[in-house]
Amino acid sequence: MKHKIGLLGFGTVGQGLCEILLNKKEFLKKKYGFKFDIVAVADFKFGNVYNAKGLDIEKMIKEAKAGKKFTQDLADWDNLKLIKKSNTTVWCELTYTDLNTGGPAIDHVKTALKSGKHVVTSNKGPAALFYPQMKKLADKNGVKFKIEGTVVAGTPVINLAEGPLAGCTISKIRGILNGTTNYMLTEMEKGMAYDEVLKVAQEKGYAEADPTGDVEGYDARGKVTILANIVMGAGIKITDVPCNGITKIKPADIEKAKKQNKRWKLIGSVEMIDGKVEASVKPEMIDLSHPLAGVMGATNALTFTTDLLGDVTIVGPGAGKIETGFSILTDLLSISREMEN
Amino acid sequence: MKHKIGLLGFGTVGQGLCEILLNKKEFLKKKYGFKFDIVAVADFKFGNVYNAKGLDIEKMIKEAKAGKKFTQDLADWDNLKLIKKSNTTVWCELTYTDLNTGGPAIDHVKTALKSGKHVVTSNKGPAALFYPQMKKLADKNGVKFKIEGTVVAGTPVINLAEGPLAGCTISKIRGILNGTTNYMLTEMEKGMAYDEVLKVAQEKGYAEADPTGDVEGYDARGKVTILANIVMGAGIKITDVPCNGITKIKPADIEKAKKQNKRWKLIGSVEMIDGKVEASVKPEMIDLSHPLAGVMGATNALTFTTDLLGDVTIVGPGAGKIETGFSILTDLLSISREMEN
Repeated sequence: MKHKIGLLGFGTVGQGLCEILLNKKEFLKKKYGFKFDIVAVADFKFGNVYNAKGLDIEKMIKEAKAGKKFTQDLADWDNLKLIKKSNTTVWCELTYTDLNTGGPAIDHVKTALKSGKHVVTSNKGPAALFYPQMKKLADKNGVKFKIEGTVVAGTPVINLAEGPLAGCTISKIRGILNGTTNYMLTEMEKGMAYDEVLKVAQEKGYAEADPTGDVEGYDARGKVTILANIVMGAGIKITDVPCNGITKIKPADIEKAKKQNKRWKLIGSVEMIDGKVEASVKPEMIDLSHPLAGVMGATNALTFTTDLLGDVTIVGPGAGKIETGFSILTDLLSISREMEN
Repeated sequence: MKHKIGLLGFGTVGQGLCEILLNKKEFLKKKYGFKFDIVAVADFKFGNVYNAKGLDIEKMIKEAKAGKKFTQDLADWDNLKLIKKSNTTVWCELTYTDLNTGGPAIDHVKTALKSGKHVVTSNKGPAALFYPQMKKLADKNGVKFKIEGTVVAGTPVINLAEGPLAGCTISKIRGILNGTTNYMLTEMEKGMAYDEVLKVAQEKGYAEADPTGDVEGYDARGKVTILANIVMGAGIKITDVPCNGITKIKPADIEKAKKQNKRWKLIGSVEMIDGKVEASVKPEMIDLSHPLAGVMGATNALTFTTDLLGDVTIVGPGAGKIETGFSILTDLLSISREMEN
């Protein structure tokens, strides 16, 4: 079958995904039998477009890069109507993350699933706030709700736990889930103070103008909640997770860690304790010999503690246009595999 | 459907797998819909047994642990007849590895695939010597030939590359593929000489009485060949791979590395260079900041260099009864998933 793809949001991730899909069209068809058209795009800045036979994506990328509105296949439908009425078979939800309400993404996801269309998303909002409900809705409608990209971009985490690690019971997950703060901690070790490092991180585009979401640990908390609910079936709320960021770490703390052969890392943790899942985000001093201690800069890493394999650690990128675009592709391929068999 | 499992070999891995399957029977059924009977076992020491409705595995484990032959459901069939005539749907090939001829495992694998039965194996022989032929035979007969356990036990490598990393082009794989030599190098850094460390490794059961396969790099070479052929589609022979072990590393070499902030690791490497796959096994001095440098003791690790994610590293156990037993389970679950969809 040919997948008819719709995109909600045509920002960095949406464009990254489209670049991959265009560059790899033949490869994906040949190696995985994955055939597709991108038939619908909804973007609040560039406009809503629809062509049941496939859009001219190259042209749209050029227009978006030039900051221009789309000029072709304009649709007079709002997002929800486009989701429902189009011939799409799968929607990629790539709008901005709102970790308080999950909107507007959550309405997109609900509408698509109710319309019997698969949803793939890197948007932490719906995943962190409403995963159990959305999974149920997907099951009811015989479609998939896939969210690999919500935790450390395309580096396999959820698909690793659900795929190759299936059969293991996972009792603990600990990881470096935020690249911005890991970069900042790495630089602070080299001697810079917090404020100075934050400025550099902002200049390099690692940290946003308002860095709160990263430095206070909220971004990591969203990911921890997703891991707790999906990988460990916890059913916890994001506000249940105690959260401390890196804003209070002083040069003296860095020195203290060094003297003990340790290193500060912002650790997101989910653990099964006496049958209850406990989750947290906090800076911890990690022994230099620990696998997570060697993960420096903007790289992310997670250690799964399992009953059959002991510790398994995966290290990879946690952000980026192509890296997050790939997270969507990996879920699309997984849906395709499951449908074809 | 209910999987009817046959085991070739009832040694460490076979017993490990059976322990997992017995302990997790209800969990596997409930979580993955995976139902099974173990109906046939062929072991040159304990005997060949067959019961179309399922064997008493607990009893067999007890007998094997006591070094006694099986006493129930004895079958007057040799291995090949058992493979062909039994009601098995999948065979787990867990006999000893012969990296020169692949026998007798290769005959088991061929017979099973030709009989339309899936094969799952942790035996490096058939995988390193005959993967392309066996894959073709499996495809022709509409069954699977799965080999996760041939490279670093159940730590996901092949299933990671073929599953969650699908869509990426992998241009390079570098890894620590042999736990024995990695343990020995770790200990040598602490000041022991090669001969002394080897003795300790043998006492601990990490190295065999004849340690050649490990210390000369042959074991790693088998795994490198498998990765080259399966993950990178190379079609190379095991004898094509240049191979140097750790036997020539002297205390002075260890000191030299330390002075350069480096560390010796036995690195298996597969790389696409100008459209050709080059593979090798050799000791290398690795920067202490490199993700593979922190992998100590008997742990294994692999870094995949990909076009879309950059470097992705997986770290986990490379051997062990339960860890390798799990590699068989993960492939059984994967077959089950593919059949059910």
